[in-house]
Amino acid sequence: MPSVDEELVSLSEYYFSILYTVIMANINPDLQKERQNGTFEVEKLTNVLDGDKFVTDRRRYVESLALNEKELTDGPDYNFMSRKERYVNSLRKAVHFLKCCNKYNFENPADVYMFERTAFPNEVSPIGLHSAMFIPTLRGQGTKEQIEKWVPLAENHQIIGTYVQTELGHGTFIRGLETTATYDPKTEEFILNSPTLTSTKWWPGGLGKTCNYAVVMALLYTDGKNYGMHPFIVQLRSLDTHEALPGLAIGDIGPKFGYDTIDNGFLRFNHYRIPRMNMLMKSAQVLEDGTYIKSTKNDKSSYGAMVFIRSVMIFGVAARGLAQACTIAIRYSAVRRQSELKKSQPEPQILDYQTQQYKLFPLLASAYAMWFTGLQIRDLYFTVNYDIQQGDTERLPELHALSSGLKSITTSMASWGIERCRLACGGHGYSAASGLPKIYVNVSPACTYEGENTVMLLQCARYLMKAYDAAKNGQKLSGSVDYLSERISLRSSITSEFSLASLVDAYKHRAARMTKEASERLGRLQACGNDPEDAWNLNSVVLTKVAEAHCHYYMVLVFESIVESVEDDGVKEVLKQLCQLFALFGIHENLGDFIQDGFLSNEQMVLVKQKELSLLSDIRRNAVLLVDAFDISDHLLGSILGRFDGNVYENLFEWAKTSPLNKPEVQESYVKYLWPLLNQNKSKL
Amino acid sequence: MPSVDEELVSLSEYYFSILYTVIMANINPDLQKERQNGTFEVEKLTNVLDGDKFVTDRRRYVESLALNEKELTDGPDYNFMSRKERYVNSLRKAVHFLKCCNKYNFENPADVYMFERTAFPNEVSPIGLHSAMFIPTLRGQGTKEQIEKWVPLAENHQIIGTYVQTELGHGTFIRGLETTATYDPKTEEFILNSPTLTSTKWWPGGLGKTCNYAVVMALLYTDGKNYGMHPFIVQLRSLDTHEALPGLAIGDIGPKFGYDTIDNGFLRFNHYRIPRMNMLMKSAQVLEDGTYIKSTKNDKSSYGAMVFIRSVMIFGVAARGLAQACTIAIRYSAVRRQSELKKSQPEPQILDYQTQQYKLFPLLASAYAMWFTGLQIRDLYFTVNYDIQQGDTERLPELHALSSGLKSITTSMASWGIERCRLACGGHGYSAASGLPKIYVNVSPACTYEGENTVMLLQCARYLMKAYDAAKNGQKLSGSVDYLSERISLRSSITSEFSLASLVDAYKHRAARMTKEASERLGRLQACGNDPEDAWNLNSVVLTKVAEAHCHYYMVLVFESIVESVEDDGVKEVLKQLCQLFALFGIHENLGDFIQDGFLSNEQMVLVKQKELSLLSDIRRNAVLLVDAFDISDHLLGSILGRFDGNVYENLFEWAKTSPLNKPEVQESYVKYLWPLLNQNKSKL
Repeated sequence: MPSVDEELVSLSEYYFSILYTVIMANINPDLQKERQNGTFEVEKLTNVLDGDKFVTDRRRYVESLALNEKELTDGPDYNFMSRKERYVNSLRKAVHFLKCCNKYNFENPADVYMFERTAFPNEVSPIGLHSAMFIPTLRGQGTKEQIEKWVPLAENHQIIGTYVQTELGHGTFIRGLETTATYDPKTEEFILNSPTLTSTKWWPGGLGKTCNYAVVMALLYTDGKNYGMHPFIVQLRSLDTHEALPGLAIGDIGPKFGYDTIDNGFLRFNHYRIPRMNMLMKSAQVLEDGTYIKSTKNDKSSYGAMVFIRSVMIFGVAARGLAQACTIAIRYSAVRRQSELKKSQPEPQILDYQTQQYKLFPLLASAYAMWFTGLQIRDLYFTVNYDIQQGDTERLPELHALSSGLKSITTSMASWGIERCRLACGGHGYSAASGLPKIYVNVSPACTYEGENTVMLLQCARYLMKAYDAAKNGQKLSGSVDYLSERISLRSSITSEFSLASLVDAYKHRAARMTKEASERLGRLQACGNDPEDAWNLNSVVLTKVAEAHCHYYMVLVFESIVESVEDDGVKEVLKQLCQLFALFGIHENLGDFIQDGFLSNEQMVLVKQKELSLLSDIRRNAVLLVDAFDISDHLLGSILGRFDGNVYENLFEWAKTSPLNKPEVQESYVKYLWPLLNQNKSKL
Repeated sequence: MPSVDEELVSLSEYYFSILYTVIMANINPDLQKERQNGTFEVEKLTNVLDGDKFVTDRRRYVESLALNEKELTDGPDYNFMSRKERYVNSLRKAVHFLKCCNKYNFENPADVYMFERTAFPNEVSPIGLHSAMFIPTLRGQGTKEQIEKWVPLAENHQIIGTYVQTELGHGTFIRGLETTATYDPKTEEFILNSPTLTSTKWWPGGLGKTCNYAVVMALLYTDGKNYGMHPFIVQLRSLDTHEALPGLAIGDIGPKFGYDTIDNGFLRFNHYRIPRMNMLMKSAQVLEDGTYIKSTKNDKSSYGAMVFIRSVMIFGVAARGLAQACTIAIRYSAVRRQSELKKSQPEPQILDYQTQQYKLFPLLASAYAMWFTGLQIRDLYFTVNYDIQQGDTERLPELHALSSGLKSITTSMASWGIERCRLACGGHGYSAASGLPKIYVNVSPACTYEGENTVMLLQCARYLMKAYDAAKNGQKLSGSVDYLSERISLRSSITSEFSLASLVDAYKHRAARMTKEASERLGRLQACGNDPEDAWNLNSVVLTKVAEAHCHYYMVLVFESIVESVEDDGVKEVLKQLCQLFALFGIHENLGDFIQDGFLSNEQMVLVKQKELSLLSDIRRNAVLLVDAFDISDHLLGSILGRFDGNVYENLFEWAKTSPLNKPEVQESYVKYLWPLLNQNKSKL
């Protein structure tokens, strides 16, 4: 729980209510009607999404602080800037953001997170990794002396650092990295080198132009022996001139699909020397004479950190990204009128078309499912982290596997879902004014970073195979895999009630059956002569599906538990509908998985399809309120189509008029290229 | 068949063989090995894809002409340009392209198409609609006198025009358009007006800054009566100054996800007058006194044109877009080595991972399926068009429905597929250097333009419902829906042979069953009190799935017929594998559809899953050759990852070094923003 400054919060509530009244006066009538017709109180659902009322208030207060900083919000339109301008503007904001952090002196990291999110809506800060990765790595991997030396420099921004791991030829697979750090006992230095082209460090954020320091991961050689990856503190640029230091080649890796605001960079070492003490020595040391000493303490904290980052990705990247896209597409679908449902009647809101509902509402349900799952994993992290502090690491493998799999399926779902939302907005979705392209290119890389999604699924699957073997050997499993040691129902309990328990049960059955089959298939592949690695590879497509099924089950399970925990009847009812839709859409999309062994009968299948469609009508009534409840400000959305007030067309037109291509009206290119073309045959006119 | 200048073709072959030798000398060894290990002759497959050897030769000749035009190929790197620079550069190329058309004096439109494609790789020309829509509409909708007056002006480029239909508030649904053209008999003029904000013309390509004329679609009013949409020739800009004429507001609609090279525009009319004879009067006339006369001839040619455009979209946009993405991802996957299959062995090519094969090979198979389908629809168009000329329009509704549905599913498949290819390239796929973002944003709008994809599916479904009713009433159907009046097998004939006929049969069964069920559901919905429009809407999700099933069946059918027609054994074998994979992947993805009524037995289902995976290994061997066969030049691909020579890393590095953000090394932004930050606490250092 963040500490709450009550006076300020009530002030923020006051401003919020004024703002709300002002906005409502000018609201698009279609949206106004939608907001009057709901069956539940939006604010109560917002509180559920935030955790509780106090978090909602605090979030709004912190967001309002950021929104009041003109340096952060007033700049030129992102869409009208060149790539370089986007980087420079972002750097400008990043520096101001640090000033704000000093000014407001936030105690709670959640406040900093929310403030930064508002300062960089669907963008990345070029110095974001300084506090997200550089300082934590110093703290986590450094000795006490190293922490005392480096962390204050970093916290005072006398040095700005990043975290440098991936290489041109090497990504998720860390053991493949090639950069070397060879110890030279004569000078007591490490010599960093990039022995091959593919060993060029590639992708680290902020590396290209911004940072002057980095933690660099490199293969440690001492006494002629390779000791594997270790972290080193490396100065990259002169603190006076910001020029790259001799022996280093540094630069930006060039334009990307998105991430324009950040200078992902490359770095090559040409026998570059750093002092011995620049190796971060918490878990291993190299002595003056080159002796290598590994710490005896088995440090699991980096696993915990990974779990935490992934929970933030599920919640802060995947769920919020899709929630934003749904907000835009659903509000716009309530405003947009098109075509005809009935002859000689006015064009209906496109939200009234069943096909539009079918595009958007399952995505809305997914956004809720991911949101709750992200929060749940975050809470689980705190629990397990507490256990780790107490020396109990038993649940860590399970949590690691689960968070890997969930990171994968939620970022994939969100990524595809955002594009579906964009396409559901028709032509205008393709305009930068929709805000959707920016959201998409910001979320989509999450499918790759922090572990490529297929690799993540296979990590999850490896854990499931082990757990299944353990269960088969009579071990009683707990946590998210408990069902593998339970007796699983062979026939679905789904009735026309569609109780959430019956839906959880269906997903449990599917995951259990698929795990069992995959394990048996793995056994058969080995039995017929494949060695374990080949068998694993020949089974890997099946295994990714198993991991997906497990994570899908977990999401339904979490969603159910949230619905059960909600006290307000109105909110409970709409969440129940969303949970049902999330589960039923998943069953329909993967129907074969549920009917192939007769688990779901023909009659139940028919019921599922019917209920899926009837839920669309149920949710239709509350659709706009269900996205309002995400409480994402217009500034964060960055979308004309998704404006809270629904005044889409006038703002699209005003925005277009300010487009740089419209100044001047007659362009130089006309004189240079068109005029000669138009006049070459003028005599014939 | 294009007329072939044999001498030039053999010259182009000569150059091609030299080029090939030079390139092969420098080829990445992994790619070289892939190319030596194939089981078929690439050139023969290329001929199948082109149609025959003569088309391949001619295409290469025309492409080489374009590649030799330095004005078209030498410009700055697209990825390093601002939006405005992209537009200007494209305009420059467009003007040079017209000069080339004069110089080479192509007789065959296919030559112009291929030349233009090479000049604008994955881009749109800002004056492309001049010849693609403006001139054809003048010809198609104008009287003899109008054609004689306007077409020469357009062909000599004394005027540059576009086609203006969609509005800010109105897209696919043409009857919703609001722009009015009111006839004033006093002055014998039409008064064009934009009565509402939503009637603002919006999106037409080239309208914003480039064109000085347009064909504008507007509601015709004369004698106080509304006669619906009609086309008008409208001068937009002064031929002297290029300024917008008084009474018009024109401009660019602002930046988009892609399509940077084209100025999609807006246009508002403020009681803007044009002469009566600027109405294109082929199918309707307004006389001097305002009398409206509709032509008695029922003109179906515009339907034919729509079918033609959609066949080009299937073939030229969807299939080629996905083929390009597969070329990039598969070549890169053969070059990229990552992670480990077996301990202490070198990192394998990522193409050896089953999961990577499962991502890419079904997409490769889809690209082939779409390619052949596009060619088939184009041929069908020529047949039906010939029939229309003879007064026989019987097959037009079927072809129209089929091309609508296929346009929808192929552009959707391609769109998602390209993104899957990008994600399969990991982090580097996100770099603009991969070329994949540019391909994606160029293909994705095809899901919306020329009829929004869901609307297209429902048009197809409407035809299927009618056809099914006719069949039920005993009518014998022909063409692509013949199966609706046939007796359908109730059990699949699939065996471990996986004959293509048995796969076609499976898709036929699925489409027939779903059509029948959807029709019955529609009946039930009406029987329980819904009026036909509401029943249609309540059934529309089901109906889109029916249309997809029909089109999916058709694609398998076409693919089968191509395989059967191929004579070369090696080519026939690999195409058969691709056809099987296309069909089996579709069955697995939609398993519920095939097993829910017992059509596919449990044993067959197991066989399907096994065969799907074993096909991955079969196709693995030829994967690189199968994308080489598309014969898409490096210039067209615009991808460092997908280079024919496979020299990925050195070129990524060289490219990054030239990125604008790397000049100068220390940026002004450092001095302005970073230096003050780094030095604020310097005294403490």
